[in-house]
Amino acid sequence: MLHGPFDVRTPVADGAVLIRDVGPRDGLQAISEEVSLDLKITMTNGLVDAGVPRVEAGSFVSPKAVPRMADSSEVFAAAASGAVLEALVVNERGAHSAVEAGAHVLVGVISVSETFSQRNVRMSTDQAIGELSRIVAVADQTDTPVSVDVSAAFGCAFEGRIGVDAVAEVSSRVADTGVFELVLADTIGAAAPNDVIDVINAVTKRIHGGVQLGLHLHDTRGLALANAAAGIDAGVRRFDASIGGLGGCPFSPGATGNVCTEDLVHLIEALGFSTGIDLDALIGVAQQVEAHLGTTLPSRMLRAGPRFTRTAT
Amino acid sequence: MLHGPFDVRTPVADGAVLIRDVGPRDGLQAISEEVSLDLKITMTNGLVDAGVPRVEAGSFVSPKAVPRMADSSEVFAAAASGAVLEALVVNERGAHSAVEAGAHVLVGVISVSETFSQRNVRMSTDQAIGELSRIVAVADQTDTPVSVDVSAAFGCAFEGRIGVDAVAEVSSRVADTGVFELVLADTIGAAAPNDVIDVINAVTKRIHGGVQLGLHLHDTRGLALANAAAGIDAGVRRFDASIGGLGGCPFSPGATGNVCTEDLVHLIEALGFSTGIDLDALIGVAQQVEAHLGTTLPSRMLRAGPRFTRTAT
Repeated sequence: MLHGPFDVRTPVADGAVLIRDVGPRDGLQAISEEVSLDLKITMTNGLVDAGVPRVEAGSFVSPKAVPRMADSSEVFAAAASGAVLEALVVNERGAHSAVEAGAHVLVGVISVSETFSQRNVRMSTDQAIGELSRIVAVADQTDTPVSVDVSAAFGCAFEGRIGVDAVAEVSSRVADTGVFELVLADTIGAAAPNDVIDVINAVTKRIHGGVQLGLHLHDTRGLALANAAAGIDAGVRRFDASIGGLGGCPFSPGATGNVCTEDLVHLIEALGFSTGIDLDALIGVAQQVEAHLGTTLPSRMLRAGPRFTRTAT
Repeated sequence: MLHGPFDVRTPVADGAVLIRDVGPRDGLQAISEEVSLDLKITMTNGLVDAGVPRVEAGSFVSPKAVPRMADSSEVFAAAASGAVLEALVVNERGAHSAVEAGAHVLVGVISVSETFSQRNVRMSTDQAIGELSRIVAVADQTDTPVSVDVSAAFGCAFEGRIGVDAVAEVSSRVADTGVFELVLADTIGAAAPNDVIDVINAVTKRIHGGVQLGLHLHDTRGLALANAAAGIDAGVRRFDASIGGLGGCPFSPGATGNVCTEDLVHLIEALGFSTGIDLDALIGVAQQVEAHLGTTLPSRMLRAGPRFTRTAT
């Protein structure tokens, strides 16, 4: 049984790059004000309609910890078809809820940093890997693929530098739980392009070939697109991004600035890869989100537009 | 006779990258309000004190065309020693004024785009190369090195895409005038990392080995640091940047956002190269400029600070 419009476990085709927009979940969860259900559904469906192949549309976690995501079931119920719709979960209970809500993919989180793991999910890294095995067991009952964000893979707000060997070791243990994908996350935006290449190479050596690798980059220090280009060079074809550059992690100080989806798509297409996404439509979604939130989003495409398409005055 | 504290014509040492801060000229010239002489001197001397090895401190052009730079002689007179101080000139008359003012290096501008050349310097590219030869002749009288910005090398606000062959052809003609350095400028921020590599390779094949190559990048579409990393990969060791990310070109619509010096230094040091610049002192200069202008500058270092140096709260 396949979940969603395509099998996300299949290796990405030559010349293509697979984008997952995490805006409706990772982007909106950090906002301090109330976020309307309408915005979540508008954003999710706008992304699907623009051709974004994967959308992280919500999470099934404690509403006390993350109040913005308490209505994720309603988002999934109202989501348009056409994309793989994914849900963040951190335990077995959340996995059951996400599968019931119709999530095509479950997304787990394992932190290489013990301190961040405790702050983010109130478990040690060991405990979180144990819980991940139970999440995979729940997902397996309905053949639902499980992806995992390996967080703090390039540094931690609490522990500083994180060794490449530690990232590879945790990645290897995560891969062995039976997940189909590891998404190495630069949670605090501390990676430089050489770090991306070092970590990808170290992790590739330690995991079995069936597991796909992705990158989740933050633009905190302006390096997200440089790191994405390095990831492409290193063979990565799966990237997280957030519409408008919305978001950050509420449990990791200074972790502002998910890489902006439309800016990343603009880069990837400039590099000669296809994403299947309509960039103009994507910019339209970002405009809607910006208007809805009444804020200025850190999107270059919203300000300058794509290169070589606008006439100077 | 050497000009300034080191010979800027010498190839950059292994493991080093040579930064020229263009903030006092390129950064300030686009500001619509009056800019005080005090700010220009404070900025220039702050950069010199932070260890920036090259500073473009002013220009000697028509004060009608660029009123912000009318007092460049006074900036040069008050500038601290310790850096190579450079002056933009577009004709023979400006070259004489710059040499008299004590500029260590003259900076010419040649556009690959005819339309932009007319708008920027009111000459065709051919005429501008002719004028450049006269500038070099003036400079040679005092053994003053001449660097040239090859503008619109990655696209033009008026002409769109610019072919790699055209860039190489113009670069070859510019190199033959006797300048020591070509700085390939992404005037409208349209380059992607693969373009940087393509253009550098094409130009390298066409110019004689004595000419140094540099990059002048704009962050209009968020790609300046990605392009800088690509330039480093391609062997470039000379970069322009502007403190705080200040600036743009008043004659090229949409050409906002010089790459920010402190963000570029942060990247270059993360990549394992040395710049000789004290990053904390540089951030201090950016803070001063921001306070002086009463604006928010697009500097990541001003907001997030360098990676791995701040304690999370």
